[in-house]
Amino acid sequence: MAYTLWYWPGLQGRGEFVRLALEGGEIPYTDAAHDRGAEALMADLNDRTGRTPFAPPYLELNGLVIAQVANILMYLGERHDLAPSNMADRLWLNQLQLTVADLVAEVHNVHHPVAMMDYYADQKPEAARAAKQFREERLPKFLGHFDDAAQANPGEWLIDHRWTYADTSLFQIVEGLRYMFPQRMRTLEPDYPNLIRIRDQVAEIPAIRAYLNSDRRIAFNTDGIFRHYPELDAA
Amino acid sequence: MAYTLWYWPGLQGRGEFVRLALEGGEIPYTDAAHDRGAEALMADLNDRTGRTPFAPPYLELNGLVIAQVANILMYLGERHDLAPSNMADRLWLNQLQLTVADLVAEVHNVHHPVAMMDYYADQKPEAARAAKQFREERLPKFLGHFDDAAQANPGEWLIDHRWTYADTSLFQIVEGLRYMFPQRMRTLEPDYPNLIRIRDQVAEIPAIRAYLNSDRRIAFNTDGIFRHYPELDAA
Repeated sequence: MAYTLWYWPGLQGRGEFVRLALEGGEIPYTDAAHDRGAEALMADLNDRTGRTPFAPPYLELNGLVIAQVANILMYLGERHDLAPSNMADRLWLNQLQLTVADLVAEVHNVHHPVAMMDYYADQKPEAARAAKQFREERLPKFLGHFDDAAQANPGEWLIDHRWTYADTSLFQIVEGLRYMFPQRMRTLEPDYPNLIRIRDQVAEIPAIRAYLNSDRRIAFNTDGIFRHYPELDAA
Repeated sequence: MAYTLWYWPGLQGRGEFVRLALEGGEIPYTDAAHDRGAEALMADLNDRTGRTPFAPPYLELNGLVIAQVANILMYLGERHDLAPSNMADRLWLNQLQLTVADLVAEVHNVHHPVAMMDYYADQKPEAARAAKQFREERLPKFLGHFDDAAQANPGEWLIDHRWTYADTSLFQIVEGLRYMFPQRMRTLEPDYPNLIRIRDQVAEIPAIRAYLNSDRRIAFNTDGIFRHYPELDAA
């Protein structure tokens, strides 16, 4: 029985954190809106009643619908052994994933600081100001936190000696930030070798490597969360 | 054995979601920085090693440190029976709490759209623009979602026939939004009777009522997440 993943087609966005865990865990799924289009996603969302998602991504199996990235990943971790089962480790992974979610929200805010529902072109001066503080103050703080997290475990991954959904999520934020802020990341990366080590290890997981080389991995673009606008980057 | 809660003193902020669950569940805790000040909180945070919090609030007991509001509440739900234990209900509550977190992040962004680390006074025109879209588009969407969630359960609470941490969180967002946007909330509230019913029921939980009447409940102010700036409100 395959999961149905619902997320906006044509972009990585928040859905990519779920795709990476599914792909890395070799868990069967169909990417419904990739096959059927954005209208099908909007129709599916509008037709739902009861315990509905606030927004994509959401994952469905046998009538159970789970939304919110960290919630989906926690579920996949429990059900498909993509995470340890003891309480302290579960809480720590969820905590890291929620900090990833905070970073993702701040990244989105960089290019949409004053009007989430309008275009970037309508808020470029404000975005330039938001980008400066993000690059200089927030980004090093987040990267330092995740580097500390990677260093805190004596094993090669975030927990124990095997990857979890939080490792694939750290891979994704490094990839996204490299696309969005290439100059700034070249400056900062040498300070965070443990985080970069996790990124490199995830890229070498066989199922992830196969995914990244497939046409299922959508290229980064300026419809997603991580957007490369050269005027928002600086060393 | 009492928990130690670490959060910025003098404001409700994100810590209040944790305080309400602790108070409603009559779970003993000390509010460390309320007693010892912000410097003690910063020193505690800086001195930590290993699995550290990215930011307050965090909760400590016997060396276990848990950060991120939704993560803390999930833990309290499991350990202190503030939430059902079956998987579908646990995931639904966590999903709702993560949507509360999204609302809280957007609310903070209204008064700090372009420079999270600077003052509101340094970004008032940008905040006015952010507030307009939030009031008109985002706020009804969030309130409608939570109203639907309250209506989806045939019982009187979000799940079954007893309150959970997600009910106390909905109480807090209604209270915060009433303080921040009194005009707008007067206009909108009649459309969301199920959400307001949850708010009213939470206010009548005896331990919550006692807390709200105590000096432990800090008044809303312009240091917190929900801030009343009259120029950002409109009917």
